[in-house]
Parts: sequence; structure tokens; C-alpha cells
Amino acid sequence: MDNTNAKQWDNDHFLHPWEGMDTLGKNNRTLVEGASGIHVVSDEGNKLIDGPGGMWCTQIGYGREEMAEAMADQARQLAYFSPFSNTNSTAARFAREIVKRAPGDLNQVFFTTGGSTAVDTALRFVQFRNNLLGLPEKKIIISRQKAYHGSTYLAASVSGKERDRLWLDKANELTHFLPDVNPLYRAQNQSIQDFLNEKVADLENAIQTLGPDKVAAFIAEPILASGGVIVPPEGYHKRCLEVCRRNDVLYISDEVVTAFGRLGHWFASKEVFGIEPDIITCAKGLTSGYSPMGAAIISDRLIEDVAGQDATFSNGYTYSGHPVSAAAGLKSMEIIEQESLLEHVQLMTPIFQNRLRELSEISLVTDTRGMGLMGCVQCSETGDAQDDLKRDYQLGAMIDAECQKRGLILRPIVNMCVFSPPLIINEAEIHRMFDILKAGLLAVLKAN
Amino acid sequence: MDNTNAKQWDNDHFLHPWEGMDTLGKNNRTLVEGASGIHVVSDEGNKLIDGPGGMWCTQIGYGREEMAEAMADQARQLAYFSPFSNTNSTAARFAREIVKRAPGDLNQVFFTTGGSTAVDTALRFVQFRNNLLGLPEKKIIISRQKAYHGSTYLAASVSGKERDRLWLDKANELTHFLPDVNPLYRAQNQSIQDFLNEKVADLENAIQTLGPDKVAAFIAEPILASGGVIVPPEGYHKRCLEVCRRNDVLYISDEVVTAFGRLGHWFASKEVFGIEPDIITCAKGLTSGYSPMGAAIISDRLIEDVAGQDATFSNGYTYSGHPVSAAAGLKSMEIIEQESLLEHVQLMTPIFQNRLRELSEISLVTDTRGMGLMGCVQCSETGDAQDDLKRDYQLGAMIDAECQKRGLILRPIVNMCVFSPPLIINEAEIHRMFDILKAGLLAVLKAN
Repeated sequence: MDNTNAKQWDNDHFLHPWEGMDTLGKNNRTLVEGASGIHVVSDEGNKLIDGPGGMWCTQIGYGREEMAEAMADQARQLAYFSPFSNTNSTAARFAREIVKRAPGDLNQVFFTTGGSTAVDTALRFVQFRNNLLGLPEKKIIISRQKAYHGSTYLAASVSGKERDRLWLDKANELTHFLPDVNPLYRAQNQSIQDFLNEKVADLENAIQTLGPDKVAAFIAEPILASGGVIVPPEGYHKRCLEVCRRNDVLYISDEVVTAFGRLGHWFASKEVFGIEPDIITCAKGLTSGYSPMGAAIISDRLIEDVAGQDATFSNGYTYSGHPVSAAAGLKSMEIIEQESLLEHVQLMTPIFQNRLRELSEISLVTDTRGMGLMGCVQCSETGDAQDDLKRDYQLGAMIDAECQKRGLILRPIVNMCVFSPPLIINEAEIHRMFDILKAGLLAVLKAN
Repeated sequence: MDNTNAKQWDNDHFLHPWEGMDTLGKNNRTLVEGASGIHVVSDEGNKLIDGPGGMWCTQIGYGREEMAEAMADQARQLAYFSPFSNTNSTAARFAREIVKRAPGDLNQVFFTTGGSTAVDTALRFVQFRNNLLGLPEKKIIISRQKAYHGSTYLAASVSGKERDRLWLDKANELTHFLPDVNPLYRAQNQSIQDFLNEKVADLENAIQTLGPDKVAAFIAEPILASGGVIVPPEGYHKRCLEVCRRNDVLYISDEVVTAFGRLGHWFASKEVFGIEPDIITCAKGLTSGYSPMGAAIISDRLIEDVAGQDATFSNGYTYSGHPVSAAAGLKSMEIIEQESLLEHVQLMTPIFQNRLRELSEISLVTDTRGMGLMGCVQCSETGDAQDDLKRDYQLGAMIDAECQKRGLILRPIVNMCVFSPPLIINEAEIHRMFDILKAGLLAVLKAN
């Protein structure tokens, strides 16, 4: 097919997520046309290591013949069934395989079309449950600054990234935000332990101030991903869960990024952070990005609160449990298992995290942080982490540009670059990735 | 693979859309395991005409080898790209092919993951635009009773099906609902023309009462689909658009069901109803249901209102423009064209609608209505259309059960059955479908 004009079609007709109105129609975005393993290939033939792993999602890497075949087989056999009336063994099997890997009594899967609709569904289920329990006033969702939970109106309402809140409306009456949990921004003489105590107290105080009879749930990414790979102090999640339990507040663990291997486990909530939340939301790695799908996994306890009542959970999608997406999810899960990718991530983590930490030597770098195969490099021209956004707005994009020249795509976010490569990345490739990142940082430093 | 326990997995772990809490875990849903052409096949080997066309979506029918291949080819070549940073020729081409078929200056495509997120995005775009225009108070969305626009919190908030509003929360401060537009329920001596005038006046009056400075948009399905295939009186859409234009109120035409051939045209807004709306939302037929995708198609005029401003439309999805979904959409479009399916639907429509109307002879049937390849049979044991919901709650399900015995799946909605078979249905199959429907209705009549 003749794709000569593809860039023009993109400029003229394809409105992208987070489209900037000032550059509308003039983006000339890079065309990504092919991919294999951990690499994507541009239309100009540039082969680049995929630093962000698509968008925190391409766990098993690109160009997997067995994925293409599993999806085609399902499309041939049954490309669609209506989950409103019927069921299908591929989707039902996938639900069962998910709950086998989910912690505790999280045994009920509500399929959606991605992370945003998983969060939207989780929050609507909480509203539904509290209505049926006769607690219609218990509806406030507590979230955190820099959290990202999606972009439906409701999911965006519980997202706390400041810039995203500037131009669009939010259901402010339903939400409350806790301050940043990034230890980097604690007071100069504050110990990590004191910072932890403060962050847990923030939650407790918010619940008491708003009233436990008004607060429905706390929603939290185990690691705040697009907020800048923010890892809260150790013990934070466990103590927050205790605060929630004491106050009859539900805990929703948003694992859209962390589930399916990113931290070396199927789910991070229990295996990494020691908590059994009430609901886990997931997407992305669920299908390794090969087909759109998300899920809200709900605990039996919550279901028991509503079971047997003469009520309908009037929520769901035409594509809930889509058989092609479910087939992709099952095959991705099988590959993760057959290739021992969880164990592989555990083995690669120290190498990855060590190379990441070494970047702190560069004066441009004000912080390096991460966990598992998630990392963030935060930069400032002045070298002062507190002084970020004023002058350093384009720094992430500059670093990304220098790295792309050298064979690595990053995901620039303001003055940060975040990365989460496909889980199949091997030791040599990790070194290659950080070598390029280092060279890119040094090039930007030199140019400034 | 051993699927012996699939029904049990479904009962135990797969929470379905519109799940009833009283039957939770006890549904023993029919397993649909295969499909071909206009038929689906249950795990027990029953071959059934797919009356609802999946869920108003399987336009080109099931088991299309060329679809399986197009999706597999794309999955092999590039299963995912991040639309936040890059673009891809398959997605860009699909955007261009969509706008070539969309009416007027609707030239900007925002891809989503289905109909709900298409509507959520359309409404968020309207909020964004009005904020940038300095009209932050102009936010109310006018919708209609029995409308269905999706199930994110915001999309559900503009949906007007009464039962769906019972147990879940809605953003009531953002919405206003107009009364039912079904001519069946007009006053006994009211002419259709007077009913039309009244319905248009409902919109005008609502805007004046709420204040044109407070009303942002009117959202309307050309035909209210899951509300019961309600066809408003002729001229309704045109006159509503005039009311909107006069009052600076945007018109969102929700074509999730009607677009991509259901009424014999790519889009129904202009070709069938003579209007050029400001935004069209679509999904379902966009990919013939083979892969999850939706889109909000926005007019250049609206984009011009915001272009050049220092603002970001902070909305979008990981799977916006997913390449496998875009490949499925392009191939489905190609098949519709190569097999002249739009013309085919135009040819089949009189046959389909005549057979539908003939069912009125049965005393159980209180109304038959439809357009294109959409139909609804409404029933009542008393034969009185005004007297529906009290006694006839299970009537739709009873008719569906009788039809399934005979080889046809319907979609029962309370006392109605709606249907919208794959567009490839031929004359003999239409007759077979209505023969079964007639037999099913007579069996229920006899049993009562």
C-alpha cells in the first residue's frame, strides 16, 4: 500500500491523546511502522530500543508469531459474542486464569476495554455497592497528587497530575487529593520514617476530616507511573490499607502498569507490597498491548455485599470480554510462563536499577528512581530538584531526541524521562539501553 | 483445549455487563463457541441466526478469513504503537478513510476503545472547547428519555433508560432529559405533525428554561437503539439541529449503532436524516466487532475554536488508534465496499421491514417498528401498548427462548425484542428469520 502521505493524513485527520492545540496539524509525528523483540522501526528504517515498552504495555515484545496466530484463530472461529446475553470459553477461561494469579479473594473479573474503563468500572461498582448497602452519602474517592488513573471523565477526576486538570472539567465533589508521596520532596531534615508517618497521617487525617461516613475508597497505583515512577516509602501501602480497613474505606489498587510482570510478579499488590486490596484494576500487560482490554478484579467480600439483591449493576461494554482480546491475553500469559519472564524480570532488576542509579553522576540528573523494570531519570539545568518546572520544561524532549539519534526511544514527561522496556530485554540490551541514555544525557548537558 | 468447565468458570469468575445481583453465579449462560456468516453456534452445536448481529455490530458477518489475516498481519508487523508519542500509517489511513465517508466538515478523528469512550471523549471535548472559549458555565448536555449513550460515568449520565438509573450514580448537574420521542406514546388524537412540533418544542423550551448560556450540547441517536428502536417522526433531526444552531448549542449525533451500513449508508446523519452534526460518535460497525474500537469525529469548525491556543486536550487512551483495530476497521470497510453491502442493505430493507410489519397481525404484538436492518417487536399480554411494563417483564425473554429453540437468537429487552442481523443477510435468510420469529411469538401466545 502507498503510505507516502501517511504523515499528512496524521496531521490532518488523526487527533491524538493529549493533543496540544498550539501544534495541531503541524506535528509531523514519527511513523512507527514495524517492530520486533524490544525494537520498533520507524518509516525511515531507524531501529530503536522501545524504552517505554509501547506505553508500559508490550511485556512479551513485538512480532510474536504465536500471538498473531492465536488472535487470527479466534477471529476465524468467533470474532465476537455478546457478553450481555451469552458467554464464551476463551473469555471465561481468561477470567479464571486471571483470578488464579490475583491475590486473596479477588475472584470476580469485570472485563473492560482498557485501563480507564477498568478504573471507571471499579469506581462505579463502589458507588453501586454503597447505594445497595444504604450508604448513598459514602462516595468520596481519595487519590493523590501526581496519580494517573485514566481519562474517562470519572477516571480523570481521580487523577492528580496538575497540568491535566487545567483545561478539562472534573467531578470535584467526588474526590479528595493527598499531597505528593515522593520522598524526594520531603523537608530537608526529615527522615524517611518521619516522611512515611506523615504520608500515612495524610490519609488518616483526610478520612477523619471528610468523615469516614463520606469516604468510599482510596485509589492508588503501587508506583505512580506516568506521574514520574514515584515509589512511596517502604511500608506505605500496608499502613494505608490498615487505615482504610479501620475506617471502612475500600482500597483500590490500580495495577494497570505494575501487573503482569513489570515488577517480577503477576500482581504487585501482595507479592511486592504485602497488601490484599478490595479491587485491582489492570490493562496494558494484560494482553501485552496486542489487543485492547482492561479488567477490574473485585473481591468476593464486595460481591457478597450486593449478591442476592434485586438490583442490576448497569455497567459494561459491547467489548467486555472480547474473545480476540481474551485469546491475546491467554497467549501472552502462556508466553510469560513458558519463558519464565517473571523470574527473568527478577534477575534483570538489579542490573537495570544499578545502571539507572549510576546516571546520578551526571550533573544534569537530579534524581533517579524506579523498581523492577520501571525507571525514571529526572533532570534540571540548575541541578536543583526543587526548581524543576520553571526552566526545564523541554528537557525531557531534548533528551529523548538525543537518545533517538542513538537508537533509543524514551517517554519524555516535562523534565523527566520514564522507561519500562519489554520484559524480554536481556542483560546486553539493558547495558545498550543505558549506554545510549547516558550518551544522550551527556549530549544535552554539553549543548546547554 | 478442555472447556468442559467453561460454564462454571463463567458462573464463578466472569462478571458480565448488566449483571443481575439476584442471579449472580447462577446464570449458566449459553456458551457461544463458533460462528460463520449470519450464524452463531453454541457449545451444544446449535446453529442460530444471530438476530442482534452480536450487539448491533457484526456488519460483515462472522468467520471472515480476510479479517483474521489482516489482523494477524498487523499483529506480526506492529501490534502496538504509542499514540501519545508517535503515529502509524494503518491508523492514519483509517482516520482518513473515515473522514472521507463522514458528512460535511467532520474531518478530525479521535480514536477510542468503543462507543462509551467515544461519547465520553465527545462530551469532554465539548467541555474543553467551552472552557477555552471562556464559557465555563455552558456545560449542560440535553439528552432524551430511553436514550443509550454508553456506560462510563459520563456516558451513562446522558443515558435515559429508567432502569439503568436506579442503582448507579450519575452526574445529574450536567444533564437534562427530554420526554420520550416515540410516536406510539402520543396522545390519542394527536397527529404525527403535532407530535413532531411538540417534540421539537420540548428541546427549544428546555434550552430557554435552562438558558442558552448554560446548555452546551444536545446528544441524540438518530434512532434510539437499545431504548427499543425508536424512530422519531420525520423531520425531527433537522428541526432539532435548527433549534441547536439558533441557540449556539452543539449537536452530537451518536451513530454507534446507525453508522457503517445499518441504514444503508456509511453514516445516517446526513444521508438518511439530512443533518450535518458537530460531532459524530461511532464504534461497533467501525470494525464489524472484530476488534474493540470507537471514534469521535469532530468538525473542523469546532477544532478552529480551540486551535492555536496554549492548551492540551488531556484526554485519550493507551489504545487510541490501536493498529490491529485500525487494520480490522480498514478491512471491514473494504469488504463493505467490495461486496456493495450499503446497496445490499438498501435492497433488503423493504423486504425486512415488510416482514416486520406483518407481525402486527399477532395479538401479542402491540407495535412493530424499525428502519434499515433495525427492527423491534413490542408485545403485551393484554394487547395494550400503554400497559407494558407491569405484567410483561419476562415477555421478551420468553419470545427469545421460543425463537432459540427454532434457530434464532434475539435480544430481549423487557417486553421487546430488538434485532439487527449482519448486513450480509440475504432475502431467503430474512424470510427464515421472520418465519421463526412469527412461530416464536405464536408459541408464546399459545402458552399464555
